[in-house]
Amino acid sequence: MKREFKPKCIDVSTTGLKIAVMNKEDAEEMDLNGMDRIEIKAGDKECTAVLDLTEEFVKKGEIGLFKEIPEELGKCPERVTVKPKEKPSSIKSIKSKLDGEELKENEINQIITDLMEERLTDVELTGWISANYIRGLSEPETITLTKAIVNSGETIQMDGKKILDKHCIGGVPGNRTTPLIVSIIAAAGLTIPKTSSRAITSPAGTADTMEVMCNVEIEKERVEEIVEQTGACMVGGKLVNLAAADDKLIRIRHPLSLDPRGMLLASILAKKKAVGAEKVIIDIPIGEGAKIKSKEEAKDLAGDFDQLGDALDMDVHCLITDGDHPIGCAIGPALEAIEVLKILRGDDVSPELKEKSLRLAGILLELGGKAEEGKGWIKARNILESKKAYEKFKEIIRAQDGDPEIKPGDIEVGDVTKTVKAEKSGKISHIDNKGIAKVAKLAGAPKEKGAGMYLEVEEGEKIKEGQELFTLYADSERKIEEALEAYEDRNPIEFSKIILEELT
Amino acid sequence: MKREFKPKCIDVSTTGLKIAVMNKEDAEEMDLNGMDRIEIKAGDKECTAVLDLTEEFVKKGEIGLFKEIPEELGKCPERVTVKPKEKPSSIKSIKSKLDGEELKENEINQIITDLMEERLTDVELTGWISANYIRGLSEPETITLTKAIVNSGETIQMDGKKILDKHCIGGVPGNRTTPLIVSIIAAAGLTIPKTSSRAITSPAGTADTMEVMCNVEIEKERVEEIVEQTGACMVGGKLVNLAAADDKLIRIRHPLSLDPRGMLLASILAKKKAVGAEKVIIDIPIGEGAKIKSKEEAKDLAGDFDQLGDALDMDVHCLITDGDHPIGCAIGPALEAIEVLKILRGDDVSPELKEKSLRLAGILLELGGKAEEGKGWIKARNILESKKAYEKFKEIIRAQDGDPEIKPGDIEVGDVTKTVKAEKSGKISHIDNKGIAKVAKLAGAPKEKGAGMYLEVEEGEKIKEGQELFTLYADSERKIEEALEAYEDRNPIEFSKIILEELT
Repeated sequence: MKREFKPKCIDVSTTGLKIAVMNKEDAEEMDLNGMDRIEIKAGDKECTAVLDLTEEFVKKGEIGLFKEIPEELGKCPERVTVKPKEKPSSIKSIKSKLDGEELKENEINQIITDLMEERLTDVELTGWISANYIRGLSEPETITLTKAIVNSGETIQMDGKKILDKHCIGGVPGNRTTPLIVSIIAAAGLTIPKTSSRAITSPAGTADTMEVMCNVEIEKERVEEIVEQTGACMVGGKLVNLAAADDKLIRIRHPLSLDPRGMLLASILAKKKAVGAEKVIIDIPIGEGAKIKSKEEAKDLAGDFDQLGDALDMDVHCLITDGDHPIGCAIGPALEAIEVLKILRGDDVSPELKEKSLRLAGILLELGGKAEEGKGWIKARNILESKKAYEKFKEIIRAQDGDPEIKPGDIEVGDVTKTVKAEKSGKISHIDNKGIAKVAKLAGAPKEKGAGMYLEVEEGEKIKEGQELFTLYADSERKIEEALEAYEDRNPIEFSKIILEELT
Repeated sequence: MKREFKPKCIDVSTTGLKIAVMNKEDAEEMDLNGMDRIEIKAGDKECTAVLDLTEEFVKKGEIGLFKEIPEELGKCPERVTVKPKEKPSSIKSIKSKLDGEELKENEINQIITDLMEERLTDVELTGWISANYIRGLSEPETITLTKAIVNSGETIQMDGKKILDKHCIGGVPGNRTTPLIVSIIAAAGLTIPKTSSRAITSPAGTADTMEVMCNVEIEKERVEEIVEQTGACMVGGKLVNLAAADDKLIRIRHPLSLDPRGMLLASILAKKKAVGAEKVIIDIPIGEGAKIKSKEEAKDLAGDFDQLGDALDMDVHCLITDGDHPIGCAIGPALEAIEVLKILRGDDVSPELKEKSLRLAGILLELGGKAEEGKGWIKARNILESKKAYEKFKEIIRAQDGDPEIKPGDIEVGDVTKTVKAEKSGKISHIDNKGIAKVAKLAGAPKEKGAGMYLEVEEGEKIKEGQELFTLYADSERKIEEALEAYEDRNPIEFSKIILEELT
């Protein structure tokens, strides 16, 4: 059934998916439902759109065309012919997955193609992701999905170089190992083109921290030049556009926090594959308040990473690390940037962050053939202590349009501060990740780069009454107060107790 | 985090859900993601919106407000203040269901409330429906959902009357029993306020057929008057707005054909409960080409109906009927209207349709206390043959603004016709529902009321070469040709064969 309509062109973008709006009565007469596909023809031009229905916004005989449609048709036509169009074949595959069937390679590839071409609605994509969440992804499905995500975006090509990479599962405040590891690895002559995300739920991501010192949003071609020149980079993901399908999937996964294991694995390793990584370490922090709670869970995840890595010709080396409490003392983009700079310059700060970075860098040096087994840590320490890592870091900063001579004192932090002192003496039994992250975020991190908190104490330390526990940094008194309220509420720095509870 | 924006009001409706569009950079700085909720404030007015992101359509510092938002705020304000807002609590319940948990009564009620208040996005609703589809709904969940759907819409109140109702699961062309049953039941002095849907995938629904003879879209208050006056009605669902949440759920269920059993049951019985039905018969046709294939499947479904009916204080009486082939001879709104009128007037047409209507009406008469057990059929036949049913039908037609004196010959059918004759003699072994429905739909039914087909033969009949098999009715030669093509392609009228296949 074909019918003519008078277009009403709407200068509003529907960000990709082409949407046309029809009056409910017309749709009924044409036997069309909301979210059905229609073919819209004007002269020799045509395009496929998804149908939305209205009772008022367009009258009978009219069809509302959002911005992308007149763009595709070349102009806003006088008349268009509309007819029903078959749904994309992906819909059948999505239904199969909902029904518990394993999808074939061509089915998953088609879903990702249709996703990239904006042919699937949110309802259809959510159907697939919900099915993946409940039914799980098989190993072949996960492999196909990862490859399809890699192919959906750009890739970084570094001919003839063995590429290393690292990733952290996250959840541990202050755990800013990346700038230290990348500097050490590149200083040793290895190649590590690091793309990092910004904070999603944490007070800072590596991209947020690096942005304090240099540009992090850089076009892919320039990133390749920087890596060619320095052996490394530390950039965000906006302009390099690796694994493009992943962002589109995360948009749908986000509202219900749908994180099917296979999609999580694919999301992480696709980004590593897209930079051509051959050897990758994955830092899996475990502990209360970390994303992964137990060693068993971590081992299970590591097994999946190994398996998927094998299928992608990637040597994935998982490290289960202590993620029970914050790692570095500085939490928040600028505070973390200062801490990283201090460690590179040889200052004795955040010993746990420094030690963890050396351990991880050591393993990467071994995997990269720059150190014998067991000797990586010593080599990493030498590179750090000889300031070669610092020199490399300055090189990268310069390449990314930053000032290589930036000093810790040059970095601005929030000008409203508040130092909290111990009200009693005692031993610190535990520092809680989630509570600390909450306090730092309420102070304004990561949105205000200078906001956050600096921990003056560590787990296990014996404290005297009046000793400084931490300092808050923010851009307003109000935020300091909000952060303090959360601190008092959640009490993330716990003292050992002898009497745990008094029963009355 | 609060921030000021300059509104860009967009005169486009987003059909309910309030959508605001922000530049990606602003959203990043505010730590907001697409589909997050925001609170928009202008002076002392405020509203909650769902966030959409763009790179171009609105600039930094601007916020795009779709029509519903300035409407809520009273005007398009000069400036607005925006801050993040917690997601509705339903989101947590939806996640629980995805994780396999049974939802509590208050959780399901809240989801339906949020659905009706347009507080949930398509992604969130699809997550819930996908979870229902895969995990299934428990009996308590189904009961709660049904009651919540009833409460979401209008109800028809007929004080002091015992209300009867009927429903057919569908899938059988020509099965237009409703007008006959309703006329018989109301003629017996019982009350049957019948709301019917239009065709969704079939060549005609009861509402499409009745619309040939009278108005079917009638306001609820008038419907109550009509039922008070005549004991019955036969109306569509658009204006009475029973079980309002059901339409909203079907919109999301449609694209992936997600029909979780519990939602299907809730959808059907909520509409019966909303008219106050105490005794309901459900016609479950089984057979090849019907919606339900086997007797086992039908019994299972019937068990669920019984159970849900009990919980709703409704006596649900399921009837498994022969749905292997078309029931009436007429297929298409006008053709079916003529057939119904002829049967009511005493003409000897469509004997199977007449007999089935009498059987079903008989059971309803027994359930309604108007006939002893086993005597309903005779009573129904008496009411039909004495023309009391026809008188009642005319009364209903008049009440619904139709001409009670309408004759079968007054009803217009498609003026392009084509009669197909048997090319050989033989016995008709089977008439296929789906093939017949396809042919009638290609002829133009239900959109063109006069289109469809009239079967001149029935299953089991012995046919001579040249005898008429059926006549097609359409409004154009092209449609007749398309229907004929489908007929030749699908061959829905099958002849008995002795040699089933010749192997060479």
